[in-house]
Amino acid sequence: MSDLLDTVRGLAKKTDSKILMVVLDGVGGLPLTVNGDTELATARTPNLDALAQESQLGQLELVGAGITPGSGPGHLSLFGYDPLKYVVGRGALSAVGIGVKLNRGDVAVRGNFATLGAGRLILDRRAGRPSDEKNAEIVAKLRAAIPEIDGVAVEVYTESEHRFVVVFRAPEGQPLGANISDVDPQVTGVEPKTAIANDPSSEVTAGLINTFVARAEVALADEPQVNGVLFRGYSDVPHFPSFEDAYQLKAACIASYPMYKGLASLVGMDVLPVEGHEDALEGKVKALRENWAKYDFFYFHIKKTDSTGEDGDFAEKVHKIELFDELLPQLLELQPDVIAVVGDHSTPSKLKSHSWHPVPLLIRSNYGRRDPAQRYTEEEAARGTLGLRHGPDLMPLLMANALKLNKYGA
Amino acid sequence: MSDLLDTVRGLAKKTDSKILMVVLDGVGGLPLTVNGDTELATARTPNLDALAQESQLGQLELVGAGITPGSGPGHLSLFGYDPLKYVVGRGALSAVGIGVKLNRGDVAVRGNFATLGAGRLILDRRAGRPSDEKNAEIVAKLRAAIPEIDGVAVEVYTESEHRFVVVFRAPEGQPLGANISDVDPQVTGVEPKTAIANDPSSEVTAGLINTFVARAEVALADEPQVNGVLFRGYSDVPHFPSFEDAYQLKAACIASYPMYKGLASLVGMDVLPVEGHEDALEGKVKALRENWAKYDFFYFHIKKTDSTGEDGDFAEKVHKIELFDELLPQLLELQPDVIAVVGDHSTPSKLKSHSWHPVPLLIRSNYGRRDPAQRYTEEEAARGTLGLRHGPDLMPLLMANALKLNKYGA
Repeated sequence: MSDLLDTVRGLAKKTDSKILMVVLDGVGGLPLTVNGDTELATARTPNLDALAQESQLGQLELVGAGITPGSGPGHLSLFGYDPLKYVVGRGALSAVGIGVKLNRGDVAVRGNFATLGAGRLILDRRAGRPSDEKNAEIVAKLRAAIPEIDGVAVEVYTESEHRFVVVFRAPEGQPLGANISDVDPQVTGVEPKTAIANDPSSEVTAGLINTFVARAEVALADEPQVNGVLFRGYSDVPHFPSFEDAYQLKAACIASYPMYKGLASLVGMDVLPVEGHEDALEGKVKALRENWAKYDFFYFHIKKTDSTGEDGDFAEKVHKIELFDELLPQLLELQPDVIAVVGDHSTPSKLKSHSWHPVPLLIRSNYGRRDPAQRYTEEEAARGTLGLRHGPDLMPLLMANALKLNKYGA
Repeated sequence: MSDLLDTVRGLAKKTDSKILMVVLDGVGGLPLTVNGDTELATARTPNLDALAQESQLGQLELVGAGITPGSGPGHLSLFGYDPLKYVVGRGALSAVGIGVKLNRGDVAVRGNFATLGAGRLILDRRAGRPSDEKNAEIVAKLRAAIPEIDGVAVEVYTESEHRFVVVFRAPEGQPLGANISDVDPQVTGVEPKTAIANDPSSEVTAGLINTFVARAEVALADEPQVNGVLFRGYSDVPHFPSFEDAYQLKAACIASYPMYKGLASLVGMDVLPVEGHEDALEGKVKALRENWAKYDFFYFHIKKTDSTGEDGDFAEKVHKIELFDELLPQLLELQPDVIAVVGDHSTPSKLKSHSWHPVPLLIRSNYGRRDPAQRYTEEEAARGTLGLRHGPDLMPLLMANALKLNKYGA
């Protein structure tokens, strides 16, 4: 089925205009009391307010009505890839997120370290949440013990705590399938499951998985706590048009956290180095300024608006929004032809998690219509003139506002 | 793929109610300054205002978010045919636009007259833009010189200036394909290209095209300026349900310009004669009045709201909107059961071109809900109770408001 992305792909053209997409992760929120203010409405945001008064507002539903997006689908949607059609496995995300390049045919798998007791029964599915240092030590053991299986190169990477990633490198001309049942039974008190291929092309990979599990248990037999592995989430490399192919955009990612850099890299953006720790706000602005001339499109990611929501810390989420507001003038100084402010999903502190609520969207360009918005809030966004839209509508709107799309038909 | 049109087609019924769809071509606009008024908002439109106060408003996106519709896709969308699914080639549009009936299997081709120099190198891709009289004289020469090729009847028609249309009539049982590369290289200083078939069913047609080009150059050898032909845009006849088949509507088109008459004719509307020149406002009202009893549905097209936008003439676009407003009472006097006012795309004078911005939609019927609208403007439409919709939603809404659709399911 043809979709909007295919249409846009046929119409995109290169121009000098620049698009800045600011993603405030998890920015949408909820009031704590009936008719109360959300985090966004509570925050003092003079710069966002002024921007809103020159912009059109609307709302985006990233996946569909009532669907709470994970970070992967949320971002794919923002980038114009309908997340119900374009699926990226968590294994592939994790791999690229830690800087591992995947090639067509390879399979990436997310693993958890676990504690196994007598008879291989699972005592703890997270092995007591080992420290990152312990994780690295275990990974080193596995690397030494399992460099390859049946001629297939095996790479093991540390992620954090109990999490790790395994990449199976496909031999030349023999792509590995990734349609395999989970090893992780998701409950304790039972044995790890045997991986089973759900299609013929995944049979070799299922064998690799089961061999890896067995050899890991041997290699970790003298560990008191981290003595087993569970797998869940196998993925091959997604086959979809790159950002450059889809939009004729030379695009850069400015983000601090592996997941977001991985997503951007998967769609073909250059991931720019960012100085500083955690959200590294000033480092991000510096990266943006220094690379402004080199790219047509910038994805600029702010993480802490989400983390504070996940923590259920309403006041701290308000504060993180205000910190972004203080930063905003430095972004506007660069005079992007089109700027969007949006989230990849909502993360209300009231829910301490991602949520299904639409995210508020703001777009400013030279070709916008008048909008009554006085502030960038969920409430004003809900009466915004851009309307309530599906996430993959965003990129075509930004491309259009940047005058980067030809007319469709005569 | 099943779409809304298929569903509506199964539910449509004949009744006595009448629908009037007024298309103000390119009616949506933009303010010239941030937060300024658009052309529609600037215009003094007492009659449209009064109508808006009894109507529901909304916005239509004819193709999709960010996509700027050509006139063809924009109108198909208004008529209920999803323009990403139902595609009509420019050649077919041109042919039916000048009153040429196409049959299944025929191929229509858009041609340009060109000036060729030594070695067939193209000097001018538009042959110095000949007068319409000169165009007709050249067409007469070609008709005499090339009545048929290899037993296939060839018809040549004048369009205007350097533009003409050729129709190749498929012999009984031998449909002609239209998947062929362009003869027009779109640059000067090179020879016209040889047409190449992109699929086996188009090989015969490609041969006809190349023979036509060669014989035309012989026939025009003594012409100093108009001595070559270039082809671009081949099309066969679109295969989709007619307006009558889809909606059980006996439908009439009231328009002045070939393209719009052609589109209406393609979907099976009767094209009514209109007295007068250019937009012929009074002639259109006369045609509407005189044929009111004979049809269930009228497509009533106003062109100048678009042309003035294309010219970048804000004040003149405002004026054309006001001229339509003066006409409106004569339309309302006929007491249509359902009247819609809408555009086929936006044409902001600021952009001097079609644009992607949604078009404002107004629907009045006896079965509307209350809407806050005081005027028919982009801003009021954006908060209209009909919401932001995909273009092909319009026809089902009009059919429903005319009580012409049965219930879906028991």
